[in-house]
Amino acid sequence: MRYEDSAVKDIKIAYIGGGSRGWAWTFMTDLSMETQLGGTLCLYDIDREAAEHNKTIGNALTARNDTKGKWNYQTVGSLREALTGADFVVISILPGTFEEMRSDVHEPEKFGIYQSVGDSVGPGGFMRAMRTIPMYVEFAKAIRDYSPNAWVINYTNPMTVCVRTLYEVFPQIKAFGCCHEVFGTQSLLALMLKDMKGIEGVKRQDIDISVSGINHFTWISRASYHSMDLFPLYREFSKKYYETGFSDKADHNWMNDSFACAHRVKFDLFRRYGQIAAAGDRHLAEFMPRQEYLKDPETVHKWMFGLTTVDYRIQDLHKRLARSKRLVSGEEKIELKPSGEEGILLIKALLGLQDKVSNVNIPNRGQVSNLPLGAVVETNALFRRDEIAPVLSGNLPVNIQSLVMKHVLDQEATVKAGLTKDKEFALQVFLDDPLVGLSESDGRILFNSMLKNTAKYLPGWDI
Amino acid sequence: MRYEDSAVKDIKIAYIGGGSRGWAWTFMTDLSMETQLGGTLCLYDIDREAAEHNKTIGNALTARNDTKGKWNYQTVGSLREALTGADFVVISILPGTFEEMRSDVHEPEKFGIYQSVGDSVGPGGFMRAMRTIPMYVEFAKAIRDYSPNAWVINYTNPMTVCVRTLYEVFPQIKAFGCCHEVFGTQSLLALMLKDMKGIEGVKRQDIDISVSGINHFTWISRASYHSMDLFPLYREFSKKYYETGFSDKADHNWMNDSFACAHRVKFDLFRRYGQIAAAGDRHLAEFMPRQEYLKDPETVHKWMFGLTTVDYRIQDLHKRLARSKRLVSGEEKIELKPSGEEGILLIKALLGLQDKVSNVNIPNRGQVSNLPLGAVVETNALFRRDEIAPVLSGNLPVNIQSLVMKHVLDQEATVKAGLTKDKEFALQVFLDDPLVGLSESDGRILFNSMLKNTAKYLPGWDI
Amino acid sequence: MRYEDSAVKDIKIAYIGGGSRGWAWTFMTDLSMETQLGGTLCLYDIDREAAEHNKTIGNALTARNDTKGKWNYQTVGSLREALTGADFVVISILPGTFEEMRSDVHEPEKFGIYQSVGDSVGPGGFMRAMRTIPMYVEFAKAIRDYSPNAWVINYTNPMTVCVRTLYEVFPQIKAFGCCHEVFGTQSLLALMLKDMKGIEGVKRQDIDISVSGINHFTWISRASYHSMDLFPLYREFSKKYYETGFSDKADHNWMNDSFACAHRVKFDLFRRYGQIAAAGDRHLAEFMPRQEYLKDPETVHKWMFGLTTVDYRIQDLHKRLARSKRLVSGEEKIELKPSGEEGILLIKALLGLQDKVSNVNIPNRGQVSNLPLGAVVETNALFRRDEIAPVLSGNLPVNIQSLVMKHVLDQEATVKAGLTKDKEFALQVFLDDPLVGLSESDGRILFNSMLKNTAKYLPGWDI
Amino acid sequence: MRYEDSAVKDIKIAYIGGGSRGWAWTFMTDLSMETQLGGTLCLYDIDREAAEHNKTIGNALTARNDTKGKWNYQTVGSLREALTGADFVVISILPGTFEEMRSDVHEPEKFGIYQSVGDSVGPGGFMRAMRTIPMYVEFAKAIRDYSPNAWVINYTNPMTVCVRTLYEVFPQIKAFGCCHEVFGTQSLLALMLKDMKGIEGVKRQDIDISVSGINHFTWISRASYHSMDLFPLYREFSKKYYETGFSDKADHNWMNDSFACAHRVKFDLFRRYGQIAAAGDRHLAEFMPRQEYLKDPETVHKWMFGLTTVDYRIQDLHKRLARSKRLVSGEEKIELKPSGEEGILLIKALLGLQDKVSNVNIPNRGQVSNLPLGAVVETNALFRRDEIAPVLSGNLPVNIQSLVMKHVLDQEATVKAGLTKDKEFALQVFLDDPLVGLSESDGRILFNSMLKNTAKYLPGWDI
Repeated sequence: MRYEDSAVKDIKIAYIGGGSRGWAWTFMTDLSMETQLGGTLCLYDIDREAAEHNKTIGNALTARNDTKGKWNYQTVGSLREALTGADFVVISILPGTFEEMRSDVHEPEKFGIYQSVGDSVGPGGFMRAMRTIPMYVEFAKAIRDYSPNAWVINYTNPMTVCVRTLYEVFPQIKAFGCCHEVFGTQSLLALMLKDMKGIEGVKRQDIDISVSGINHFTWISRASYHSMDLFPLYREFSKKYYETGFSDKADHNWMNDSFACAHRVKFDLFRRYGQIAAAGDRHLAEFMPRQEYLKDPETVHKWMFGLTTVDYRIQDLHKRLARSKRLVSGEEKIELKPSGEEGILLIKALLGLQDKVSNVNIPNRGQVSNLPLGAVVETNALFRRDEIAPVLSGNLPVNIQSLVMKHVLDQEATVKAGLTKDKEFALQVFLDDPLVGLSESDGRILFNSMLKNTAKYLPGWDI
Repeated sequence: MRYEDSAVKDIKIAYIGGGSRGWAWTFMTDLSMETQLGGTLCLYDIDREAAEHNKTIGNALTARNDTKGKWNYQTVGSLREALTGADFVVISILPGTFEEMRSDVHEPEKFGIYQSVGDSVGPGGFMRAMRTIPMYVEFAKAIRDYSPNAWVINYTNPMTVCVRTLYEVFPQIKAFGCCHEVFGTQSLLALMLKDMKGIEGVKRQDIDISVSGINHFTWISRASYHSMDLFPLYREFSKKYYETGFSDKADHNWMNDSFACAHRVKFDLFRRYGQIAAAGDRHLAEFMPRQEYLKDPETVHKWMFGLTTVDYRIQDLHKRLARSKRLVSGEEKIELKPSGEEGILLIKALLGLQDKVSNVNIPNRGQVSNLPLGAVVETNALFRRDEIAPVLSGNLPVNIQSLVMKHVLDQEATVKAGLTKDKEFALQVFLDDPLVGLSESDGRILFNSMLKNTAKYLPGWDI
Repeated sequence: MRYEDSAVKDIKIAYIGGGSRGWAWTFMTDLSMETQLGGTLCLYDIDREAAEHNKTIGNALTARNDTKGKWNYQTVGSLREALTGADFVVISILPGTFEEMRSDVHEPEKFGIYQSVGDSVGPGGFMRAMRTIPMYVEFAKAIRDYSPNAWVINYTNPMTVCVRTLYEVFPQIKAFGCCHEVFGTQSLLALMLKDMKGIEGVKRQDIDISVSGINHFTWISRASYHSMDLFPLYREFSKKYYETGFSDKADHNWMNDSFACAHRVKFDLFRRYGQIAAAGDRHLAEFMPRQEYLKDPETVHKWMFGLTTVDYRIQDLHKRLARSKRLVSGEEKIELKPSGEEGILLIKALLGLQDKVSNVNIPNRGQVSNLPLGAVVETNALFRRDEIAPVLSGNLPVNIQSLVMKHVLDQEATVKAGLTKDKEFALQVFLDDPLVGLSESDGRILFNSMLKNTAKYLPGWDI
Repeated sequence: MRYEDSAVKDIKIAYIGGGSRGWAWTFMTDLSMETQLGGTLCLYDIDREAAEHNKTIGNALTARNDTKGKWNYQTVGSLREALTGADFVVISILPGTFEEMRSDVHEPEKFGIYQSVGDSVGPGGFMRAMRTIPMYVEFAKAIRDYSPNAWVINYTNPMTVCVRTLYEVFPQIKAFGCCHEVFGTQSLLALMLKDMKGIEGVKRQDIDISVSGINHFTWISRASYHSMDLFPLYREFSKKYYETGFSDKADHNWMNDSFACAHRVKFDLFRRYGQIAAAGDRHLAEFMPRQEYLKDPETVHKWMFGLTTVDYRIQDLHKRLARSKRLVSGEEKIELKPSGEEGILLIKALLGLQDKVSNVNIPNRGQVSNLPLGAVVETNALFRRDEIAPVLSGNLPVNIQSLVMKHVLDQEATVKAGLTKDKEFALQVFLDDPLVGLSESDGRILFNSMLKNTAKYLPGWDI
């Protein structure tokens, strides 16, 4: 790394999961639009061919006249090569394939358990964690051995489990997890200002919030726009759209878009608990007991969000593979549009180029007073040169604490299950999730079949 | 109070709920057999006539030649009179009548919720808490005003909520809660020694245990008999009787005795979580999610414990009322048999007559490292002259912590609901109990009807 | 208060100590240059005439054409009037007169104790605390009664004791303490960049620091200028000027200016403890054991800072009184130059006009992990609309923790002494200060004489 | 180990420092009088000949008809042999020789620093710690490797540093430190009952106390004899003997016995701080700032305790060596008198033979709420089968906390200095001790000379 003229050059970023069709393009696009940074992006993926394609796409961006951030894209064949000399490490992987995800999402339906995402908690989130943990053990060891001083940014789900595993294996790691779900809620508040007050052009960054909780189950205790307290307005807003749901435009409607929602769950949680839940409804619903928002497909429909099917995801992947082909061949050119992600801003802050307050997933060192120390929590933090200083968010209200704590303890136990590979212990953790809600005998049948379905990613387990 | 010759005389004990038919007799009997103590027992009850009856019964005990502990029994008409000058305060009341208890226990059955006791957690425990809290607010204020230095012993359920309320209202109070459920589990371990090893005559006091958790959901992490570690033996024992259940004698069988159990739930929890749950199965079952042990009457039958009906309790009361009459008239004489309760031993320890280690319910000052400070927990404690020093029990294992924590936070919220009388907040707390497991709309119907049924004990509520 | 067009109008600020000759002028000048704020500044002082003078000076500022911040200046005769309706409260008082300060600073010299300031710790700081605490008890009660929701900014020393007393009396108070000593150290780092690297024009705000500790004994654990880590440079810088001291210009030399220093103490502390102490040397020296930097006047001279005499302060006051006269009469006009203080920026942040990270004195809620909760500490904090969220600074290194902890506990005990007015307890706290270092018999003589000298400000004491 | 008939046989105890002339005899005598235990005591010492002598003495005890505890005494040549298979490990060593102790105690006198013991804190305690730490690192590693499940009892000073080092190196160790200083204070309270109330025959075990603090600076917050609160009596007692001191018999007078004291320091600390300091005055004085009780020999004389010289200790050793010879040859026979130490009672408790509450030095897991977690503290604890459960002692009063905390943090830093061997860091820790009270330049001279004097025990230091 080399600092000069308000810029930092010769940065090495290692990208684990660099063969991604989607998120990698976003990241490379953002890099290509950033003038203050430059260096090498080293793409590593178990599917090296996919990484090679992204290398081609990335270097094409560098070659364009209209890009300002010029990066050298490379691929390597091992974690060691990727990490050695790295200043930053980005991890964004798909743990397993869509076949395992199909089991995560759909196998529980046989027992009446419906999941809208299946990647964080619930039976699907648990199984995904089981296969992710051994991969993250490997990443943590490699980072400890090859780039112990690098900053590590995780984008993979289950976020909490991933970050927690990194710290469990290598406690000195400088890792944090980024997620854009909170941004989405800021955007909703910006739209609310337009809808309720006629204020146009508010950017999500103009919405000042205090967040606290865990990933995908984060809570806003205070929101403001300049001098305006947004809570009274949100109270009105959530009442106005309580029955109908809220949607800003027709083509982004929850009925047409599996990833969209009408915010009814969010409005309902506000009514019940008094704070603004800061994630998409599809995520939020999975953190609540099963009978609440995911009882059955009719209930889901009533709350106006979708149960994303894995078939949908597979179709979506096909589209992205086709696009990859067009991008590699040059048939299609990447549009230079900022993604709205903050990853690159955070990198700049860690390099000392500008201070930045954002929300982040890191172990609790006291930022949430009434959640256990060491557990991974999501709060605001101040990013500065080579430092992430969490902003104290204090206590969650006791009824929200009770909802969140259950997941915190289950996720702590999930990491332990993944590390010890103790099948009976794992089963009890699996059963303890409020989305499962089965007797032990039923739960054991489901657990065993799901475990079998993902067995090839569970080295060392006795299945 | 006056100390002389290894004894303490002129003690004043205020007994709130002194009209009790049952527990008061036990207490007076134990007092009458204890040589080192003497003084006045002041019986206070909203049913003064019942207190008068007990006064007669008590003074008859004092008059007998075969009693060694001579006490003067009195009744008074107000808390102020009862408490003024008291060295100890015993609280053992029935909050409400069997009519309210009928609603607590049976109303939820309309929604498929079965409760084996209904006095601690679950919908019944919650409603009982709502009517108990205002009474305990009154007690705490009276103790603050009239006997701030007295030691206060609570025997009323919901234990955790009662003790917590006392400390919330008067933080300097010297209160603690006693419960014999742990003793029952010690007795089981003593019986195990006979059954498995042929060791006869082991008393429950010879079973050394480390306990941690909350009332009626306490866990034994270490048990020994002299130099013998009892855990390996309990593992065998619980396997041996896993299917059949364990019962020491025919007439104490769970099928004949509503308060008995066959310990199958206890054995199952041991298999699943690795520690010995230290309460009767009827209590334990209520702290687990609804689908586990209380799914329906068949499930309950399978696990070999009973759903105590309120009709049964009413019959039982009739028998006790009849006995009261016989005791008052002198037709029947109390048998001088030690109850096995430790209350009087604890009083002696607090008077400095002997050290005593027992289990006790008091606010967490660090005795359970991974439960919140201030919440009422049950652990061992060392009782000495004018001091209760909790014994550090460390961390609960994470999976047990997850089960216990849910109730700890719900009970903290329950106290808040009872103090604020905020109906919407109370509803959310009610719904959060794992035994409820209803959607909000169903839960609201049940909540409202139960609240109405107990409304006359809810001053200041908007019902 | 009224928000409009990116500005907040009709603010009411109560200024306790509003008769000040010096700091009030600074504050009014800063206000007059700020376009986004407006309203009433209510000056309250026990010397009402002095407040009246400042009212005249303030309103003259408002009347000028070249000022942008138009405020209405008023005086009132009671705390009640000042506080009622206040949005902000500023407290900046002189507790007692220079006569008491003379005793604080010079009486201990009879026992060989030299103090460079005498307002924070040491025998002088302790006695100043004793007379300040009853005043702050009164302020806290008045704020509780008349403006419980106002933000309260304290500028008075002893800072820690003042803020701690406010929270002790009214725990819900929204109070914080501001001090510019840390800014001075930022400025030193800016000068270092010029001296060592030839970088001109660096403002202190460009120096990014992480601070932790207590007021006047705050420590910088990380400092950067853009991407540059300043610690290696400071290591060189402090060595270069270790013997000679560092001074930027001749007229600001420590030999000519009682409030200046040559930073030798700061350089020495860095050599010994590895972090940058962030206050003037005159303050820092007083927090270290007596034999270190304040052993005798020769030692002080060697370390190149001054022992401010009270005679000097009296002379200085005379000059300021004369200036007051000129300002009131209009003979002299206030120069519109920003003070560099951040008070008004913090007010703007609390109004939601812009986020701001600054250092602040508030009770520890976990921002310093290894200092006691509740004690007032100084760290960075994020100021946002109606919220101060401390930034987690983690653990102080154990050897710095040991130095700071002694004062934290002594200041906790100092507040207790001031509140209980227990003379014997107070004496033991007085003796425990590392700057005192006397046997109890000598210490008692000094303590008694100092207490007598300040007796008229100690209502309720038995002196 | 083998349990039978209320006894445990075939125990293996490893005794590190088994060549001791004094403490080993005490231990072997106690063992020989205990019927419930038996097995092998394996004596290990770097002076193997000394261990052989003790083996002879021990086996002679076993051979006697009047002993009930029959042990097989052996010596071994390595830690590995001593520890392998051990159930208990006793560590009682002299770190270095009297030559190093001479420097510890007398070198600081050149700078006016007088020490009454020089083995815990102060310059002597620090230097002793420096040479002890590497030995304890070695012990901890050997225990980890050869007897990880053994209970380890430390008797060596500096107690806090020794125990802390064991846990730092091997966190799972089951180690605790025993010290009889608290017993001495219990004995003083027993004598007080005779002196003030004429109650004869009170044993120290009858004095019930709550202790909290650190070794040699432990504080009693509550003391009782049966139902009698001893604090009011101690208040009178300490006043009665404040000037003259208290001594029970002429030959145990502080003027004739270097290890005795007249308790004037203890009485003075009670007057000043309100609790009973529970150690001999010689130890207590060293934990207070230098000017208090150890200012100069005259001050020491005034407070009526002695400065033990190393010459005295050498003479004492000569006597003990002569006695060793007589014991080995059989010329002298050991008298079968209980030592009053509790070590063997604690071993019995850990074996499950009886519960026992005693005071113990172990890491703070919350037993002292306002001292740092992890630091070694001394409080009561409940010893049971294979468990030491500390009894919660709550908060130290703030002024006592301030005195104790300084040493806690210094001892934490001392361990760090000993482990890192960082000379400059060590110097700063050395200077921070309140007994040192020197400027850095003087302190450095003393530090360097003391370090040189003990250099042969400081492997890996750059001296």
